[in-house]
Amino acid sequence: MTDPQEAIDAESTARASERDPRIEAKTAGDVQEGIPFIGAGPGDPGLLTVTGRELVESSDLVVHAGSLVNSELLTEYCADAEQVSSIGKDLEELVPLMRDAHESGQNVVRLHSGDPAVYGAAVEQMDALEHEGVPTYIVPGVTSAFAASATLRTQLTLNGVANHVAFTRPQGKTLDPEDDHIGEFVGMGDVTTCVYLGTHAVDETMDRLLDDGHDPDTPVAVVYHASWPDEEVIEGTIGTIGERLAVAGYRASAMVVIGDAARKAGYERSYLYGDWANRDETASEADD
Amino acid sequence: MTDPQEAIDAESTARASERDPRIEAKTAGDVQEGIPFIGAGPGDPGLLTVTGRELVESSDLVVHAGSLVNSELLTEYCADAEQVSSIGKDLEELVPLMRDAHESGQNVVRLHSGDPAVYGAAVEQMDALEHEGVPTYIVPGVTSAFAASATLRTQLTLNGVANHVAFTRPQGKTLDPEDDHIGEFVGMGDVTTCVYLGTHAVDETMDRLLDDGHDPDTPVAVVYHASWPDEEVIEGTIGTIGERLAVAGYRASAMVVIGDAARKAGYERSYLYGDWANRDETASEADD
Repeated sequence: MTDPQEAIDAESTARASERDPRIEAKTAGDVQEGIPFIGAGPGDPGLLTVTGRELVESSDLVVHAGSLVNSELLTEYCADAEQVSSIGKDLEELVPLMRDAHESGQNVVRLHSGDPAVYGAAVEQMDALEHEGVPTYIVPGVTSAFAASATLRTQLTLNGVANHVAFTRPQGKTLDPEDDHIGEFVGMGDVTTCVYLGTHAVDETMDRLLDDGHDPDTPVAVVYHASWPDEEVIEGTIGTIGERLAVAGYRASAMVVIGDAARKAGYERSYLYGDWANRDETASEADD
Repeated sequence: MTDPQEAIDAESTARASERDPRIEAKTAGDVQEGIPFIGAGPGDPGLLTVTGRELVESSDLVVHAGSLVNSELLTEYCADAEQVSSIGKDLEELVPLMRDAHESGQNVVRLHSGDPAVYGAAVEQMDALEHEGVPTYIVPGVTSAFAASATLRTQLTLNGVANHVAFTRPQGKTLDPEDDHIGEFVGMGDVTTCVYLGTHAVDETMDRLLDDGHDPDTPVAVVYHASWPDEEVIEGTIGTIGERLAVAGYRASAMVVIGDAARKAGYERSYLYGDWANRDETASEADD
């Protein structure tokens, strides 16, 4: 097996000059040859896509993201398949595992939580597999921020309240302080900021926002395990959520939603279903 | 029927003091009483969720977002249901339509394109219906940015390239210039900027980015009708995409992805599948 970083670099260099012909030839809805990297959705088995479910159901080997994927989904859709958790395994172990199973004729699927495009680390596995001659592709999924928004009975964009959405994560071991943009997103005033991978750092994140002069009364909702049976909602503000979350005791697996949209407060009826006579192309797209 | 804006204001005021008990009692995965507001996904019928499909299949009346929802999905899942397009209908028409059907015992579903949380205008319909005594809830879906990312065979976050994602829209009739943050997102350098509702305005958007001094060589990918049978990809840069898109001729229904992640260039192997011995809680969440 080629060293994974070398494989990644080789794929990257090749694709910079010559684009992968599958980008043109295939759509995001197509079932393709090779190993699908499937977004398992936020947790509930019903929030996997129809195509994702069919692929998982017909699989022989499922490599999944361990406790980040709801075991109910595995029980419901692929109880008879071999199931391997990727947690604790590096590329040197995962790539030959998937390659060998694929080459021996097994249906292999890779199941990531949420959607693979958001904090997924799918592409590096895909490039390493492609370099070994194993085709791969992505089947998109529902991200946990959408499940959190559904639970809160709100929208991440909300007319007159939030025009934009940011998916972000806080500074820490894997993100330098200068690449932490949470304060900038919140400071824009009309962005709903969805913090991934930040449950353990909510207190420090809110302290930094307070230090930067952001309104302590800005609503913050924390949704633990959105769509799982043990889903829980903790609501507060920039000023109060840290303490409330400490009481609740969650240190991982929660979505932190910052902004007025989290409380669905004070929004306006949209242009879309309002003065329809004036609708233009933009309005017709606004349902997207 | 109560005036929709009054209904919205009344619901908003009530929920500000007393939270909807369903936020605690139900999860984002639960099928609930009343009318579901379902994210239809980006287009391909297979990218609807399992729960969304079940609800659509058992429906008597489907109110859908017209040409924004792929007609193949309606044909495949609810050919026998009554189908009504919401395009051209205001709240005064939509709300009694859905209420009356619900009260007469029909299974009513509301189908929005993508996920209802992103540029969806679902909540105003939900509040107006709730005010009329009709329960509602949201079933999340796959947004078109995730389908576009799958088509491009990349991730919106990519280690060493993009740490964050913005879902945004450009200034125009329904967004003031000071609320257009595209330049700010692009300027952060490590944000993948996904522009919704902006196909018709790509040229002006790119001109503004150039005027603001952003690198003209920054990659931009435009994915028209991501996951639809007529999906098409146009690739370029801030400096070239406007002209290329003009040649292609699309004026609506495309996702515009700005940033190095659009070309999957120069990323690094992640911490996640790298030096596993040093993994901590953040790393274990990084698959989310």
